[in-house]
Amino acid sequence: MKTIPMQTPFYYRRPIRWGDTDVAGIVFTGHYFDICMEAIESWFIEVLELDWFILTQDHGIGTPFVHAEVDFHAPLTPRDGLSVRVDVERMGNSSLSLALTGKRNSDDQHSFTGSFICCFSDIRTMTNIPIPEWMRRRIDHYQQSCAA
Amino acid sequence: MKTIPMQTPFYYRRPIRWGDTDVAGIVFTGHYFDICMEAIESWFIEVLELDWFILTQDHGIGTPFVHAEVDFHAPLTPRDGLSVRVDVERMGNSSLSLALTGKRNSDDQHSFTGSFICCFSDIRTMTNIPIPEWMRRRIDHYQQSCAA
Amino acid sequence: MKTIPMQTPFYYRRPIRWGDTDVAGIVFTGHYFDICMEAIESWFIEVLELDWFILTQDHGIGTPFVHAEVDFHAPLTPRDGLSVRVDVERMGNSSLSLALTGKRNSDDQHSFTGSFICCFSDIRTMTNIPIPEWMRRRIDHYQQSCAA
Amino acid sequence: MKTIPMQTPFYYRRPIRWGDTDVAGIVFTGHYFDICMEAIESWFIEVLELDWFILTQDHGIGTPFVHAEVDFHAPLTPRDGLSVRVDVERMGNSSLSLALTGKRNSDDQHSFTGSFICCFSDIRTMTNIPIPEWMRRRIDHYQQSCAA
Repeated sequence: MKTIPMQTPFYYRRPIRWGDTDVAGIVFTGHYFDICMEAIESWFIEVLELDWFILTQDHGIGTPFVHAEVDFHAPLTPRDGLSVRVDVERMGNSSLSLALTGKRNSDDQHSFTGSFICCFSDIRTMTNIPIPEWMRRRIDHYQQSCAA
Repeated sequence: MKTIPMQTPFYYRRPIRWGDTDVAGIVFTGHYFDICMEAIESWFIEVLELDWFILTQDHGIGTPFVHAEVDFHAPLTPRDGLSVRVDVERMGNSSLSLALTGKRNSDDQHSFTGSFICCFSDIRTMTNIPIPEWMRRRIDHYQQSCAA
Repeated sequence: MKTIPMQTPFYYRRPIRWGDTDVAGIVFTGHYFDICMEAIESWFIEVLELDWFILTQDHGIGTPFVHAEVDFHAPLTPRDGLSVRVDVERMGNSSLSLALTGKRNSDDQHSFTGSFICCFSDIRTMTNIPIPEWMRRRIDHYQQSCAA
Repeated sequence: MKTIPMQTPFYYRRPIRWGDTDVAGIVFTGHYFDICMEAIESWFIEVLELDWFILTQDHGIGTPFVHAEVDFHAPLTPRDGLSVRVDVERMGNSSLSLALTGKRNSDDQHSFTGSFICCFSDIRTMTNIPIPEWMRRRIDHYQQSCAA
């Protein structure tokens, strides 16, 4: 199999900013979905080489999320920095389940874990479609490289 | 038991705004946590008569979330409007599990369901504390009134 | 002139939430634009009886902003509550300039003032269009009622 | 004068993400303040080598904003990418005025310009303080290097 250049495993690295925090001095719970979405979109760019805007506008494919779940283990402050590892949990016919592991760069401690499931769909009919073959191959490659 | 004035069940009603949407014309996945946090904080104000700011600043009590989960059933646009019903799923010694049901006002269809668990904690020591007795009574009252 | 039912002057009232705050315990600077956009969209709904989603989707009219400006006078916390008064500063052929005055409900003190200018435009050609006559009449009515 | 290592002029580079957009397919007006805040905090880290969290928590210094202003020249989509140049407009005794110039990486066109003024203050007394001498030297150095 021809090597596909991609970072495996993929880590989304992000500073924690003043604006992410709340009165308690830690990242506000409500911001974690946004951070996870940033990590997942960055993973799409790394593995599929296209972002969600291009995916919908040029390919007519959406990836609406059907499930999102986060477990919080340790708080985050701007002192910490964050690295989110993205793993493929399961690839179905239309659905893609991604596991997220957020670590604090400061002490390598788990900050959160997440599980997000999206479904590939035709944005005109809003019905599920099979994940296109070339995408499937790249996602497979990513999954196997991470497992290796 | 003396009647405690509170709306049971409690619904958090909220317009869907332009700024909630994304290119696909529906509420962006990343904003659902924020919307759920708004619903839950509003429930605290209704049932416990204090918001999270007062709870931390005046009572020294935080309610960090340990789990957050959303299932997406139908998209939301500014045409829909949103009502989020908040139910007590389970009250432990320190933990409180809330079930959220988001409905579109336009067609009464389920838009999302969510499950959020927070733990009452001392904000100085960051350790879990039992839910204060007077809060427990009010939460119990809410739960029973909803079931009735 | 037939009376057009609308609240004059219009106040956008909004609680300050935990999620609006930052480590300093006050509303994060970055959130003020969002709050102002909420106030302005609510004013559109009150005065023109349509929100930006319906305006673009059903009428093909966008109102892109060309200028936004906020002066900060006093911080906001969840104890304060917020009322934002919206005034028409100037209505040009295509452009609409709105003045915002944010007051803390707690002590009636000015929290911020803002000036926002948008241009009515055809969303297909992305070129400016004259403000439609019926909208102009309603905006005029609002402006005169506020001055009265 | 000893060379202080810093990037002059400083550019904050940032992808435009799906979550930044609205129904119109461009970055939502309400998000520009957040983007500008990200750019300014990144400039603080580059020039003063400390972020706002450390500045408040370890140095007891806040930099509340007194004015924020953005002129919008051309929309942004995820195809564009964004570079925000930060310039020192004026440094007063307590106040710092920064000029922001946002360019689209795709065509080098101006997307927005902004002007933001903050005041250095003691977070305990909430009163203005002179900008500390060592910070003043670094900001001076930045300003002169940019002008050179």
